Amino acid sequence: MSLIHEDRLFPADAAARAVARRLYASVKDLPIVSPHGHTDPAWYAQNAAFADPAALLVVPDHYIFRMLYSQGVRLEDLGIATVDGTPVEADPRAIWRRFAAHYHLFRGTPTRLWLDHTFATLFDLDVRLSERTADLYYDHIAERLARPEYRPRALFDRFNIEVIATTESPLDDLRHHAAIRASGWNGRVVTAYRPDPVVDPDFAGFRDNVRALGEITGCDVGTFAGYLEAHRRRRAYFKEFGATSTDHGHPTARTADLSPVETEALYARVMGGSATAEDAELFRAQMLTEMAAMSLDDGLVMQIHPGSARNHNPRLLARFGRDKGADIPTRTDYVGALKPLLDRFGNERALTVIVFTLDETTYARELAPLAGHYPALRLGPAWWFHDSPEGMRRFREQTTETAGFYNTVGFNDDTRAFPSIPARHDVARRIDCAFLAELVVGHRLDEDEAHELAHDLAYRLAKEAYKL
Amino acid sequence: MSLIHEDRLFPADAAARAVARRLYASVKDLPIVSPHGHTDPAWYAQNAAFADPAALLVVPDHYIFRMLYSQGVRLEDLGIATVDGTPVEADPRAIWRRFAAHYHLFRGTPTRLWLDHTFATLFDLDVRLSERTADLYYDHIAERLARPEYRPRALFDRFNIEVIATTESPLDDLRHHAAIRASGWNGRVVTAYRPDPVVDPDFAGFRDNVRALGEITGCDVGTFAGYLEAHRRRRAYFKEFGATSTDHGHPTARTADLSPVETEALYARVMGGSATAEDAELFRAQMLTEMAAMSLDDGLVMQIHPGSARNHNPRLLARFGRDKGADIPTRTDYVGALKPLLDRFGNERALTVIVFTLDETTYARELAPLAGHYPALRLGPAWWFHDSPEGMRRFREQTTETAGFYNTVGFNDDTRAFPSIPARHDVARRIDCAFLAELVVGHRLDEDEAHELAHDLAYRLAKEAYKL
Amino acid sequence: MSLIHEDRLFPADAAARAVARRLYASVKDLPIVSPHGHTDPAWYAQNAAFADPAALLVVPDHYIFRMLYSQGVRLEDLGIATVDGTPVEADPRAIWRRFAAHYHLFRGTPTRLWLDHTFATLFDLDVRLSERTADLYYDHIAERLARPEYRPRALFDRFNIEVIATTESPLDDLRHHAAIRASGWNGRVVTAYRPDPVVDPDFAGFRDNVRALGEITGCDVGTFAGYLEAHRRRRAYFKEFGATSTDHGHPTARTADLSPVETEALYARVMGGSATAEDAELFRAQMLTEMAAMSLDDGLVMQIHPGSARNHNPRLLARFGRDKGADIPTRTDYVGALKPLLDRFGNERALTVIVFTLDETTYARELAPLAGHYPALRLGPAWWFHDSPEGMRRFREQTTETAGFYNTVGFNDDTRAFPSIPARHDVARRIDCAFLAELVVGHRLDEDEAHELAHDLAYRLAKEAYKL
Repeated sequence: MSLIHEDRLFPADAAARAVARRLYASVKDLPIVSPHGHTDPAWYAQNAAFADPAALLVVPDHYIFRMLYSQGVRLEDLGIATVDGTPVEADPRAIWRRFAAHYHLFRGTPTRLWLDHTFATLFDLDVRLSERTADLYYDHIAERLARPEYRPRALFDRFNIEVIATTESPLDDLRHHAAIRASGWNGRVVTAYRPDPVVDPDFAGFRDNVRALGEITGCDVGTFAGYLEAHRRRRAYFKEFGATSTDHGHPTARTADLSPVETEALYARVMGGSATAEDAELFRAQMLTEMAAMSLDDGLVMQIHPGSARNHNPRLLARFGRDKGADIPTRTDYVGALKPLLDRFGNERALTVIVFTLDETTYARELAPLAGHYPALRLGPAWWFHDSPEGMRRFREQTTETAGFYNTVGFNDDTRAFPSIPARHDVARRIDCAFLAELVVGHRLDEDEAHELAHDLAYRLAKEAYKL
Repeated sequence: MSLIHEDRLFPADAAARAVARRLYASVKDLPIVSPHGHTDPAWYAQNAAFADPAALLVVPDHYIFRMLYSQGVRLEDLGIATVDGTPVEADPRAIWRRFAAHYHLFRGTPTRLWLDHTFATLFDLDVRLSERTADLYYDHIAERLARPEYRPRALFDRFNIEVIATTESPLDDLRHHAAIRASGWNGRVVTAYRPDPVVDPDFAGFRDNVRALGEITGCDVGTFAGYLEAHRRRRAYFKEFGATSTDHGHPTARTADLSPVETEALYARVMGGSATAEDAELFRAQMLTEMAAMSLDDGLVMQIHPGSARNHNPRLLARFGRDKGADIPTRTDYVGALKPLLDRFGNERALTVIVFTLDETTYARELAPLAGHYPALRLGPAWWFHDSPEGMRRFREQTTETAGFYNTVGFNDDTRAFPSIPARHDVARRIDCAFLAELVVGHRLDEDEAHELAHDLAYRLAKEAYKL
Repeated sequence: MSLIHEDRLFPADAAARAVARRLYASVKDLPIVSPHGHTDPAWYAQNAAFADPAALLVVPDHYIFRMLYSQGVRLEDLGIATVDGTPVEADPRAIWRRFAAHYHLFRGTPTRLWLDHTFATLFDLDVRLSERTADLYYDHIAERLARPEYRPRALFDRFNIEVIATTESPLDDLRHHAAIRASGWNGRVVTAYRPDPVVDPDFAGFRDNVRALGEITGCDVGTFAGYLEAHRRRRAYFKEFGATSTDHGHPTARTADLSPVETEALYARVMGGSATAEDAELFRAQMLTEMAAMSLDDGLVMQIHPGSARNHNPRLLARFGRDKGADIPTRTDYVGALKPLLDRFGNERALTVIVFTLDETTYARELAPLAGHYPALRLGPAWWFHDSPEGMRRFREQTTETAGFYNTVGFNDDTRAFPSIPARHDVARRIDCAFLAELVVGHRLDEDEAHELAHDLAYRLAKEAYKL
């Protein structure tokens, strides 16, 4: 028995499956370009062994613990640290057993696909994970993690990663990126500029963060001009560590294009502590447009990731902190929201703004028509909850006819789960090959064109769109 | 010729169809658990013969007469009673002929599937219904309805119903349920608590209804505390007749968690007759949270069915009354709407809140992420207009990857059309088996897992979620 | 090699494909009924040769130049005329070469399907268009366009058009329609009444337009009654030139049913120049209801096309004018918006209101339930960005189960691209046959019923719904 089948995710129809196989064969060994993600640069800098199976695969993965939590498993019992330090489960084997006993919950989910891929290809396991096989898994994986070939840099090579981007706050000193460069290691790890902590007035510690940015950059953030200059300098610093992009995780896609006088007054309010909720929203909106202006100058590609209601569960937030699986997508408008930014910069061919969504209703209605018109716009891949076989399929079905393939930017894994990276790219390549195969079998595309597209979607478009 | 084919609704692909057949074979004879529906308990209590084919199959089925009405057939000509008693068609054969002459309108609809299933399996008919065969059908069905084996209790057994829930108002004395129990019949029919008439200030006769509730329960509904106590007592009464659930059919999913002082004042306004539309909405919202609190105490599973704009057609309402096919779904928010209730009870593992939707855009964007996180939440099946092959398929495709199968609760038929119950469960079982078969053929699931899931979706999950 | 395959767009599964082939064979040669479109009546009146390949196929097609623009091609370089007369590319061969060099952008789009169909069937081309074959194409097509059999009337016959509707403003004198009639040519070309310029206060020149309408019709448009009378007379004039329908392209689907006093006051504001944005919206809303009232009198079928944010790109609008590919769909409500009109006329069996949408989320949630109930409502086909294989498929999948096939009105091409008309109808026929074939293979429909439906969807429903 094998945990994964060589034809997984391909069409059922024999003719379409045959085409999908041929397309996939031509792209499966392409290097991974990972232009957007959240792996920890310390891993590559320090190259330390991963601690244990639970610490590698369970505890940091909110896809896993949210599902277990929804079915009654306490986060404490999965070793999720509490804000106040109340003790939680410390035995990784106990955590692993709880996870294993609930593995059936992931049937039909992408998490199952990613994990089985990891178990099979990285750890050579060939029995299904369950309560019964929990210890067998634990011992086997723990033994492997102790080997040198399972350290981060070795995995980086094994995964065939050509380049990977991490994401850092402007307040980060990029010490790990500096250490990577200083180490002489030839793996290409670049940073990305994620200014939410100094752009979003609702971010915890926002004003202190802005002041810290002023200190780091030597700019007077008492004025909006000084604040913008601080961003410019920090973006330049990030570019020294390979950054080719910025990333903006706002609650909505709203943009604004205020006059200098209005902007200065707004900045005074948000820094003075008298900002209303509308001020905060307006400031984020204005900053997207300011960031687009900077991108036109310094060439950084801009990513907008809107539409998540973060920390929806206040009890969980109070006990365990942010990013614990309680972020819920919301209805998102793009047509009106992006207009101020697009009015100013949408026609710029030298600018690239990549837009993502958690609201799939906008694919065909808003995003594909926008990206199929504005030179500055591109569509990011199916994101987060939609980074899944069905989600990717809906993305292609609902964007291709209006925006084409070439207004999209290939795949990104957007993950902090390092071992899942090859699995995620593999799923994306398979789904794209399956989609292309069906176009070929439906005589909408010739197979030579599908081969070119498969390569573009798996490799070239990400590399070009992100200038990597 | 047969009206129904043994492979109906299975995938076209031979390999997938073969898997679907095996899965279906293992679940097709499982007993029916019907945890939510609207059949008339008087049928089971009195066990009288059904009057005639039109009275059984046409007149009470708003799926049928709405479609005929949309194509120009007058409701009077279908025997739908008028509010003011203006005479309508009284000849059941004439009604049946009109229906038969328009049967082609149902091509491609679930109504066609359900009816053909009923015609074929219950009445052994094997020619298609049409103007030409109308009388043949009428005579044949009328003859059968006169037989003892077509009386309600016999059909209950024939349909292999393990348990069925009806839905009653708190003002109902449950006499039919009492009669069923007193009769010694061993069919299991339970009630469900549907408090809309005493919870929704916009419900016709609301204040009188509340006062009646006070009288029935011996509670002083002059205060909010007394009103809540009346609910508590009435829920306990419903539990004596087997109730394991409550059901809430609100226009939106809005919930609230007001302070006692605010709630008391709001209650005074809605009972004093000075309530605004916003007061009414807020009262419904608050009552969902109050009902959740009671469910945590008495264990009743809570169902929320929001999002229908009831009685959209005022002329039809004035002439024929409620529930005549003019209820239209509306855009529905869950992320913000449910937050007050979830903030208070979402983390309770002892509570089950089952949420339904008529707005499919919320499946992947809101409902699956919510149910894949909150321990108290489960997703009800594809509902009403979406209780259909394509609707069920979209439900699975858009919820499974984020919420998994185990945050859903199996199927319910939600019907007042008694003979359609086996057909509806059969469609659900077939669509689920087809969906699982495609996961198996796409190598996302092993066949043994699919067998376990097919059983869970057809039987176990409903039984467990509804505590039946 | 052939550019198009005889099985294109059919299901991959062999059994389903075989059924689709049989269904398609029975409808592929049916005449084209084109009840809604934007071809230029001057073509049929003057029957002049088309100028060159670029003028015929590239310059007027916003599907083409929007995609090229999105990928950095300047509109000037495609020969799109500027508002101020700044010179643009005047060499049609240069334009054609630019288009050809970017032809790969259309992979997976309906534009590719339509163009390849045109190249193959109209021009007998059998190599793929690319930078390399650009001149070969240009010379070949240019040579054909000079032949008499490529003039508009010859193409009309060749395309097997039984009847085609154009769309004119009430201010149009219909001289081309008059010339067609005077010419003795037997091609059936009818007009349609599109009153946006005199109904929408936000339309450029609205008040002058209304005054011009008064002059043309000899009505006193100083009063609302006179303004309505002007519409009545103009509709009668349009009916003389074959009009059977009106067409309303509003930003939303909002309708209103104001009192005469309110309406008169509103009309005074919009004509007095003091109208607010809300006044403008309300006037459009009221006029839909007024137009429905007139339709009940004069029998014109009413089409409502809401939901496009027109001219989203102000720089493009300023430089190139309207309709340059920058119209973006928006979220659209129907349940509340149409209620005032439906409250008044929804139950009229003698009225036909055909509703279109650019917001697919309304198909299953709002439009199918509305059309499956109200006698006056019908659903227009998948429109504009959704006039595509996937778009049509979603339309059928999301409307059929609730509204059935018979509350839809067949296909319309809605195009100004004359040579694409056979291609567009062919795509629609293929997709409908594929959809029906899958219902047959899934045993939801018998094949004889599917044949009847294929004919209805390809021909009869459009002819009947539009009274053509």
